[in-house]
Amino acid sequence: MAEPTSCGVETETVRDVLESVADKWTLLVLDELDDQTLRFTQLQRTLGGISQKVLTQTLRAMERNGFVARTVYPTVPPKVEYALTPMGRDLGEAICGVWRWTSENYPQVISARCAFDARKNHPVVGV
Amino acid sequence: MAEPTSCGVETETVRDVLESVADKWTLLVLDELDDQTLRFTQLQRTLGGISQKVLTQTLRAMERNGFVARTVYPTVPPKVEYALTPMGRDLGEAICGVWRWTSENYPQVISARCAFDARKNHPVVGV
Repeated sequence: MAEPTSCGVETETVRDVLESVADKWTLLVLDELDDQTLRFTQLQRTLGGISQKVLTQTLRAMERNGFVARTVYPTVPPKVEYALTPMGRDLGEAICGVWRWTSENYPQVISARCAFDARKNHPVVGV
Repeated sequence: MAEPTSCGVETETVRDVLESVADKWTLLVLDELDDQTLRFTQLQRTLGGISQKVLTQTLRAMERNGFVARTVYPTVPPKVEYALTPMGRDLGEAICGVWRWTSENYPQVISARCAFDARKNHPVVGV
């Protein structure tokens, strides 16, 4: 698909990168690191509910994408810190609109879920 | 966590809904349905690369969240159409910023990936 999206962007071009961005933990890490540099364990504590394995994978993918800078200090044991790169900070700002939308519309989403779940004999999804 | 995020939003409140939004296929469906109503098979064809099972799950979750309206016409066989609700359209607009960012920064992300992959003896992720 090389068709432009409704946002005027070529779908094919952005899909691959979008997949890296459209991830709950990536969004939460972007938010946590927005104004501070954190060590792995601090990040894990602040995020809550993320396993060491998933946080490791998330940070590694974010570093690979150029969103996060990882600094190793030659101490014993080595001290490793994570911070947003300028690109990561820029992405975080673009994502703020989604955070704000979610915050403002959270009650409506919950209402919609309740209404959906309350509907009896909901027909199966047709084609 | 009840701390406000850098976007000024309470993390705990939005995290649950954010998880529904931060999904590649959800973002792509929001985009495809932005200006048109589509049947399941049309949507599957337009999206490309999505299985029937995943598209069914995606649409059902989006309907449950109030983002998508599903209309069943009493024909034989039944005709089922999917369209965005006003809330879904509003969310799509909030997400446009992320699409635009991704489009503008795609080359930088690819460069960052290449640089990351080229680094020899990359140390393991420390804590």
